[in-house]
Amino acid sequence: MLKVYGFSRVNKMARGKTRDLRVLWALEEMGLPYEVVGMDHPQQDLDTPAYRALNPFGQIPVIDDDGVVVTESGAILLYLARKSGKLMPRDLAGEAQVLRWCVAALNTIEVPILTAWFVDLNGGKGTQASDALHQWGSMRLKQLDGWLAGREFVATDEFTVADLLMTHVLGAGTDESVVKDHPNVLAFQRRCIARPAWKKAFDAYCDRVEAG
Amino acid sequence: MLKVYGFSRVNKMARGKTRDLRVLWALEEMGLPYEVVGMDHPQQDLDTPAYRALNPFGQIPVIDDDGVVVTESGAILLYLARKSGKLMPRDLAGEAQVLRWCVAALNTIEVPILTAWFVDLNGGKGTQASDALHQWGSMRLKQLDGWLAGREFVATDEFTVADLLMTHVLGAGTDESVVKDHPNVLAFQRRCIARPAWKKAFDAYCDRVEAG
Repeated sequence: MLKVYGFSRVNKMARGKTRDLRVLWALEEMGLPYEVVGMDHPQQDLDTPAYRALNPFGQIPVIDDDGVVVTESGAILLYLARKSGKLMPRDLAGEAQVLRWCVAALNTIEVPILTAWFVDLNGGKGTQASDALHQWGSMRLKQLDGWLAGREFVATDEFTVADLLMTHVLGAGTDESVVKDHPNVLAFQRRCIARPAWKKAFDAYCDRVEAG
Repeated sequence: MLKVYGFSRVNKMARGKTRDLRVLWALEEMGLPYEVVGMDHPQQDLDTPAYRALNPFGQIPVIDDDGVVVTESGAILLYLARKSGKLMPRDLAGEAQVLRWCVAALNTIEVPILTAWFVDLNGGKGTQASDALHQWGSMRLKQLDGWLAGREFVATDEFTVADLLMTHVLGAGTDESVVKDHPNVLAFQRRCIARPAWKKAFDAYCDRVEAG
């Protein structure tokens, strides 16, 4: 059985934003059986030699698929898509579009969005550097908004792991503040989280982590 | 013929650090024929409707492989590895390790490293937020250094696109300041840039961009 190392307890601020949700959502979309190995948030369970052997960065999620250990949410999604033949075209040209938009989500988009938040959290709010990061992020969201005009999904005509990843990078389900000024992105995100597999994964996650 | 949209002119500060080099290096490793479509740095040639149609974010590199357009350096490397059967294992379990370390380079490592530089460039140097970003980056490099102890390459026993990407994210060839306090990472990076394909790609790049 495929094991997902995910959170069993998450502090309120981070709830919904933890990256294990990306993998849990994908597994529900693909209909693959799995079990969750629950870890405490933030990191009591992550700073052990056993966990560091799986992931030297001590991050969640990790999967262990009968001995194939994969870390990094984006890599796990691409691995599961290749394995299942779902949420990604099987031809190389189609796969390339999914690769492209997964990397765009994790690098072009997430770099300024995540670090603007981090800098503000660490006393940088209102500084020139914070403003520059927010401008960088806004520019990227505006460009993404233009791309999504007239498109249903970001990489292909069908829902793929790139849509799932982009949606979660932008605050899926729990926070529309990042995308509120970008109507095509907002509509795209709402379209993605309206999928039954997101609801199923998110509800199960909430049941699990709200006990903490 | 595969077209690579790369720089034909790069300002001195960015020389060697532009991401087209990741693709040019990979193409030399793989022995694939290509031609470079030269673009001006920073962005005179990138802000045109024709280029924005290829890449809505206006970033370099882009490839056009007989009509298959791929953006994002990491996605291009993975596409080329799948297409050529080189610099990545052909089995799914081996491929997963390369996916994992490509995403680690572009997200886990590059997020704090790139933005610490960006924040300092934008007046943040010495602030609490800058210090927090530098600490975040140092923690990641220390964890990577531990992983590389006793390993020749980051993802598998052979050189893969993950090594190429990690090496360039960390300042390949032109700047050891990021990795100088991390001996295993430094040795790894030097091992990677000792490869003839890096030298060939970098020399041709320098010949091209130094005219600018």
